[in-house]
Amino acid sequence: MPERDLPRRPGRRVFLQTAALGGTLAACAKQDGDSAADQEPNRLGKPVSDYGRRSPFEKAARKFRESKTPEASASFTPLQDCHGILTPASLHFERHHSGVPAIDPKQHRLLVHGLVERPTVFTMEDLRRMPSVSRVHFLECSGNSSGDWGPQRAPDVQRGHGLASCSEWTGVLLSLVLGELGVQREAQWVIAEGADPCKMARSLPRKKALDDVLLAYAQNGEAIRPEQGYPLRLVVPGWEGNLNVKWLHRLKLTPEPYMTKDETSKYTDLLPDGKARLFTFEMDAKSVITYPSGGQKLSGPGFHEITGLAWSGRGRIEKVEVSVDGGQTWRPAALQEPRHRMAFTRFRYPWQWEGGEAVLQSRCTDETGYTQPALEELIAVRGMNSNYHNNSIKPWKVAADGSVEAA
Amino acid sequence: MPERDLPRRPGRRVFLQTAALGGTLAACAKQDGDSAADQEPNRLGKPVSDYGRRSPFEKAARKFRESKTPEASASFTPLQDCHGILTPASLHFERHHSGVPAIDPKQHRLLVHGLVERPTVFTMEDLRRMPSVSRVHFLECSGNSSGDWGPQRAPDVQRGHGLASCSEWTGVLLSLVLGELGVQREAQWVIAEGADPCKMARSLPRKKALDDVLLAYAQNGEAIRPEQGYPLRLVVPGWEGNLNVKWLHRLKLTPEPYMTKDETSKYTDLLPDGKARLFTFEMDAKSVITYPSGGQKLSGPGFHEITGLAWSGRGRIEKVEVSVDGGQTWRPAALQEPRHRMAFTRFRYPWQWEGGEAVLQSRCTDETGYTQPALEELIAVRGMNSNYHNNSIKPWKVAADGSVEAA
Repeated sequence: MPERDLPRRPGRRVFLQTAALGGTLAACAKQDGDSAADQEPNRLGKPVSDYGRRSPFEKAARKFRESKTPEASASFTPLQDCHGILTPASLHFERHHSGVPAIDPKQHRLLVHGLVERPTVFTMEDLRRMPSVSRVHFLECSGNSSGDWGPQRAPDVQRGHGLASCSEWTGVLLSLVLGELGVQREAQWVIAEGADPCKMARSLPRKKALDDVLLAYAQNGEAIRPEQGYPLRLVVPGWEGNLNVKWLHRLKLTPEPYMTKDETSKYTDLLPDGKARLFTFEMDAKSVITYPSGGQKLSGPGFHEITGLAWSGRGRIEKVEVSVDGGQTWRPAALQEPRHRMAFTRFRYPWQWEGGEAVLQSRCTDETGYTQPALEELIAVRGMNSNYHNNSIKPWKVAADGSVEAA
Repeated sequence: MPERDLPRRPGRRVFLQTAALGGTLAACAKQDGDSAADQEPNRLGKPVSDYGRRSPFEKAARKFRESKTPEASASFTPLQDCHGILTPASLHFERHHSGVPAIDPKQHRLLVHGLVERPTVFTMEDLRRMPSVSRVHFLECSGNSSGDWGPQRAPDVQRGHGLASCSEWTGVLLSLVLGELGVQREAQWVIAEGADPCKMARSLPRKKALDDVLLAYAQNGEAIRPEQGYPLRLVVPGWEGNLNVKWLHRLKLTPEPYMTKDETSKYTDLLPDGKARLFTFEMDAKSVITYPSGGQKLSGPGFHEITGLAWSGRGRIEKVEVSVDGGQTWRPAALQEPRHRMAFTRFRYPWQWEGGEAVLQSRCTDETGYTQPALEELIAVRGMNSNYHNNSIKPWKVAADGSVEAA
């Protein structure tokens, strides 16, 4: 439901009355108001600066996944501390397989070869001179929410859902580059390889490569960050994060996929019948409430804005519904406009908490009509051997004292 | 013109042929391609980290305006180094009147008083609990491009147009807060005051305050930056930057404006007849080419993508036209979608540079039908005594050797 269509709730004004805001509002007599400024500085502040930093009072940070080798680990976006639909580049989740290489963009090259008419080496300057596009897209590791398959559920939204982030990416359409170089008829796959020491590589189908894939060199207005593939990464809209190869230095056109480690022993899903799903590219529609979420505590009864994020690898989010009674009833949330395709969509839902126990959850529907499933529905199809692609509905339980934990 | 409607230019492929990319493309024999990786690292890179930084190879920085008091100065966004429509928070332009105060958000208060039924002091926690919205908006200092009034034209787009930036802002609608507190009939103005030592203050008309003004606490997904008003600033979409009061700590509802320093001796425009324009709130539609722009040098003849930014204080950008022949002919540029209201719109125009002299410029038209004027047209109306509100067309001159300067 578009933001403007949010129904005017009866008693909406109640959230500012009496104890509705946790009793922190201080009604004051009519006065000149200088009292509000008493604690504020009265000497000159800091001068202008060349490159800004956040306030030292702000502590939002990526949490790490425990690992003997932090070079082959992951870090999680603190979704509970994020606003709107963009993830600050400094807080974009990470997943490295052999650490972040330090690459001099002047030395970096992209080789495009194999089944193309004109194999070519591109410098970064070459790529930056070509026609560019900028698009807002989420990235999600397909291992996001993997703990939710079993009893080891993440205690908070950061560790449960923080392998997902959203940025404005700028670069060249891969279809443009491939069109210029002349793709041969037998070329059905593109092998994308990174310049990290492990040469992380994935096989990408021709059809997607000629659709909306970006050779991205910028993120949120500036050069892409080192952890995100500086100076060049593949952005494969809506497809699992691992395909969005970072530190991209090679694209090879081939008749067959390469069956690399990360598309065989990893990033596949063992089904109940003993077969494994391969090449599970698209990220299914998913949503999660980021406030209130696990580890938080409501400051008191009264008005709270439930908010969260929804996204789909198949296009635009059309609807998000919220339940505050454990899934018995669902009501539409307001969606932040504009809603980009394959991007985070922020949803918001006004909630009057009476102070008792409550179970909160969200479910989204994308433009294909697909609706996010409950965990039981997902398990019925996929069994319990999966690690990747858990897009199930996430319930949060609010206790009577306001504390929130995974249900 | 939407991006998808960009005409397929005859000979579009030429930009990848022969010397079209400055001769830097190296066609290579069909080989396995490991040569491209030879210069790349082969040991483990950096591990995951809690809060990322940009690559040390990236040097984009805000330039300062020279000042005896850098606490009361300005710094300019390097528009020539920016991509897409978002400005990285670290590079958002600054304009301080007494420096950046260091404010503890737990101690910060917003007092809303004067002609309201329920004068109230808000904590940051109070505001964050209220219904929120996120919107992409530009901010522009009305002194942006002031040098273009006279012969002292800025040599590059950063110093000429860099007092403009664009972010996704999140906060509470001021209309919601005022609606809750009860605005009295006689209240026609809202006096907004910052917590900086100089208590920078501006008068805002009731109508705008009840329309789309935000009490913003977040920028581009995280807490607003100190230079941008941490923890709270007014965002007044489309209106001159100075009205977007930073470090906001007080709003007073009054029958009349306060005629503060920054709306009388400053931020007014002396007209040829000796009268001055007061309360020139809306920023007129404006555009500028960021590549190629002053101080840059084209690496060689062939394809170049002309790109730049357009914005209007009155709504959406509907059209940007580009001239590559000193204004004799104009052709539509492609516009990045979606186009937000009162936000940067990125435009792109494919250009085949033959190697001779050229004068490049852009002009935009907004949803009201208003078209950006030439400097002479602006001077005919406003005379030569103005400092603020110069939204004239900006020509860049390309010399035969590829160097670019202000025309």
